[in-house]
Amino acid sequence: MKNDNFLRALLREPTDYTPIWIMRQAGRYLPEYNATRKKAGSFLALAKSPELACEVTLQPLERFALDAAILFSDILTIPDAMGLGLYFAEGEGPKFERAVRTEEDVKRLPTADMGELRYVFDAVSLIRKSLAGRVPLIGFSGSPFTLACYMVEGGSSDDFRLVKSMLYSRPDLLHAILEKNTQSVIAYLNAQIAAGAQAVMVFDTWGGALSDAAYREFSLAYAKKVFAGVTRAAEGRTVPRVFFTKGGGLWLEAMADCGADCLGLDWTIDIGAARGRVGSRVALQGNMDPNVLFAPPQAIEAEAKRILGSFGRGPGHVFNLGHGVSQHTPPEHVGALVEAVHKHSLGASKA
Amino acid sequence: MKNDNFLRALLREPTDYTPIWIMRQAGRYLPEYNATRKKAGSFLALAKSPELACEVTLQPLERFALDAAILFSDILTIPDAMGLGLYFAEGEGPKFERAVRTEEDVKRLPTADMGELRYVFDAVSLIRKSLAGRVPLIGFSGSPFTLACYMVEGGSSDDFRLVKSMLYSRPDLLHAILEKNTQSVIAYLNAQIAAGAQAVMVFDTWGGALSDAAYREFSLAYAKKVFAGVTRAAEGRTVPRVFFTKGGGLWLEAMADCGADCLGLDWTIDIGAARGRVGSRVALQGNMDPNVLFAPPQAIEAEAKRILGSFGRGPGHVFNLGHGVSQHTPPEHVGALVEAVHKHSLGASKA
Repeated sequence: MKNDNFLRALLREPTDYTPIWIMRQAGRYLPEYNATRKKAGSFLALAKSPELACEVTLQPLERFALDAAILFSDILTIPDAMGLGLYFAEGEGPKFERAVRTEEDVKRLPTADMGELRYVFDAVSLIRKSLAGRVPLIGFSGSPFTLACYMVEGGSSDDFRLVKSMLYSRPDLLHAILEKNTQSVIAYLNAQIAAGAQAVMVFDTWGGALSDAAYREFSLAYAKKVFAGVTRAAEGRTVPRVFFTKGGGLWLEAMADCGADCLGLDWTIDIGAARGRVGSRVALQGNMDPNVLFAPPQAIEAEAKRILGSFGRGPGHVFNLGHGVSQHTPPEHVGALVEAVHKHSLGASKA
Repeated sequence: MKNDNFLRALLREPTDYTPIWIMRQAGRYLPEYNATRKKAGSFLALAKSPELACEVTLQPLERFALDAAILFSDILTIPDAMGLGLYFAEGEGPKFERAVRTEEDVKRLPTADMGELRYVFDAVSLIRKSLAGRVPLIGFSGSPFTLACYMVEGGSSDDFRLVKSMLYSRPDLLHAILEKNTQSVIAYLNAQIAAGAQAVMVFDTWGGALSDAAYREFSLAYAKKVFAGVTRAAEGRTVPRVFFTKGGGLWLEAMADCGADCLGLDWTIDIGAARGRVGSRVALQGNMDPNVLFAPPQAIEAEAKRILGSFGRGPGHVFNLGHGVSQHTPPEHVGALVEAVHKHSLGASKA
């Protein structure tokens, strides 16, 4: 591999500089992405075509000196492969034709059919081949709890009323869904690794909406089960794992025990304080507010320096945003960030 | 006063039981509230009529043994009194006719005209009189930063792109807005106290959307200035202050120094852990997930007991939800919560 700084940073090994990639780096802020999406006809058609998914995965690497590629896919492929009927209503976000709400719904729910997810594994193989060792490829999945949020709500939600009503009224039903999700996520990530993914990330986008007690029981416990079941090494190399709970800053000590090599951080926590709390147990990924990218390049550079300085010297930092890059971001500002991070972190991990 | 448990708990004095009130306790989950609102014609007309605001403020006290009343008003009265033209588009939340975005806008922005807010102070006097010493009356304001979010965005936002763009591009402009908001909030709370408010709460609804560094500079610093300027005693009694940053669990140690007597907590933090971090510096208010109220009464009681148990014995706990009660909540579930909290906390603060 030409540039494996990302994989080394995840394992807290020294790197040439602090590697950087950006959540949603293949996305709507790039005109070339929008062109490919238009060609595909819809977001789902794009995600389901290995060739087009490969095309958009590589686009940001052509523009910016990013240190990792991430599979272009949707977080809801698993419930779709459970037969829930994923679709996107224009301007409304993801929806399911069949939500999972009753005891009957839960009983009927299968684990995801990996055959139905073949297009994802084909995309992984194709991207890996096209990367030709340039940078590592990240595979990913939603966390069991985050998938359950969408499955019970039937789409996005701003208060999670239905899934939390189930959690507090019928915890047994939610546990049953989470168990099926967990088995599905394990199979899904292992198939991505078999197809060529060199690191995996679990996105717990909505775990941060839970109470402390509920987070531990309904989100973190299942993330732990996922990591216990995911392939540890492939091609003679460790496959590092990243776990990201948005809004999870209060739970870092517990998260550091979940089996991940690295924890993703949103921007609400000072990364130096986070490092102080997890010590040498895990690497950290993050954590600039995506909105900083609306400021001029000098302000972006200053904020990147501040975050690098807060992390401090020594290994174990992967730079990223604390959430996906906004569709309104000027692409050249992403370029300024990548450059600033590389420039201001030369040799920092070796101290 | 017949029941001053709430005021005593805020000052960490012993109480008969753990007092409880509920954010948005006068609200759409109550049919009698909806009837009064209908009579008023609109939400704003309701908020601007002292008589009707008084009527809805008292409604939840008729149903439930709540330990405090809170002024019924809107969080955006201050920017409205700055001339920004608050209105509510049906089903869309608050909007301003004139957002504050440019250097010119900021220069032109006045501090709020307290004469324009007379209806609020009249409501406070009327409610206080109608309460006749039954329970204390809480006055409130949005925090300088939270008000700025709405003023710059021109309404609600889910990513705060405009206010954060200003924060990172032109911090001087945002500081100028925050300074005017701070002076306005101080005058507003002091006038509420003069009219009869016996405790005050500052709602920093959106501070939790900021990075650690930005929170300290743009939200917390101004909350501190507010509390430094707010009247400390009235009618021969301390006027306790509550500060609530939703999503602020990471910053409790710093918040405990802002001049508030009590910190509001959302449900993402374990209240016992929070107490361990702030020690005897402040009381704590919270922190049940509002969605627990969709579960059956036994589950509500169990969760209330869990939270009371986590806080533990000793003074300084005001029970509340971690956010406003949902409009979909069955009113009798609120009753079950109030009863459970009182029943399971008898004498707890005295140990």
